[in-house]
Amino acid sequence: MATVSIEPLTKQAFAPFGEVIETDGVTPLSINQGYASRFNDLASIDVAAEGGQTNISWFVASLRPVPIAIRLMERHPLGSQLFMPLGGADWLVVVCSDPRNAATYRAFRATGQQGVNYARNCWHHPLLVLKDASPFLVVDRKGKGDNLEEYWLDEPMQLDLKPDRHEA
Amino acid sequence: MATVSIEPLTKQAFAPFGEVIETDGVTPLSINQGYASRFNDLASIDVAAEGGQTNISWFVASLRPVPIAIRLMERHPLGSQLFMPLGGADWLVVVCSDPRNAATYRAFRATGQQGVNYARNCWHHPLLVLKDASPFLVVDRKGKGDNLEEYWLDEPMQLDLKPDRHEA
Repeated sequence: MATVSIEPLTKQAFAPFGEVIETDGVTPLSINQGYASRFNDLASIDVAAEGGQTNISWFVASLRPVPIAIRLMERHPLGSQLFMPLGGADWLVVVCSDPRNAATYRAFRATGQQGVNYARNCWHHPLLVLKDASPFLVVDRKGKGDNLEEYWLDEPMQLDLKPDRHEA
Repeated sequence: MATVSIEPLTKQAFAPFGEVIETDGVTPLSINQGYASRFNDLASIDVAAEGGQTNISWFVASLRPVPIAIRLMERHPLGSQLFMPLGGADWLVVVCSDPRNAATYRAFRATGQQGVNYARNCWHHPLLVLKDASPFLVVDRKGKGDNLEEYWLDEPMQLDLKPDRHEA
């Protein structure tokens, strides 16, 4: 079974797939009479196709069996999709440029202080978490049109996750 | 000095001012082959006036001196503004319908699992936190036009916050 190794999530490595939502490397503005810092404009929310609007949701994701099998990839042809962890736990991001080509798959370990915004049409795996019942704020699209495309792999791939890093 | 007492934040109490972002009382959809729950469409993102777009930012807010004085209220005539806490700490929300009328001020204690979306033109105080360096994901508007109106109170008001609830 083909395996995908896990890299640290960085803006540079993730750039072909969308944006990393983090404060590292961003110079904040001082606002609120000096009582707050604003790290401004961290993502491109791209939901206006076919009259779509911004949708704010809350996801709670469960642990999957280990080793984690990659069986299904999905993409959203009408909009970007942003995930921001609310619970502070690390999580995993799996993307690819061509779901039929195993060599194009990339897996990233995100910290609990990193969100991602999948670009419109970016193939990605559904939420993968390292702690059960992990909460996320999600910013994606609502509106008419079919915004989900799925690809089921002929042969599952497997994430090369060290078992001792998997927290119950 | 006039004081404002602090109520628990509930959807019902906050309805005149915008939306509470929380999972309580919302029936989730089961998604991701049963591995996630989606609490869908929790806020009205209202940023399209004058060609505006959705802006994703990260704020970090500092503690203010206690007792907390209310000197300044602000509102955004061109867009809603959503704050979601990322650090899990309780925080405070102060709003009013008329900044010149002390009787219209309301103060709410939000939990670390509650965000708010101020409706367009809702008068509100800048971020008030109960733990220093509290992080928030913010969803508001970017684009042309003057989207900030401020009102400085002639006489400051004071939040009736029990000192023993103020965490360092």
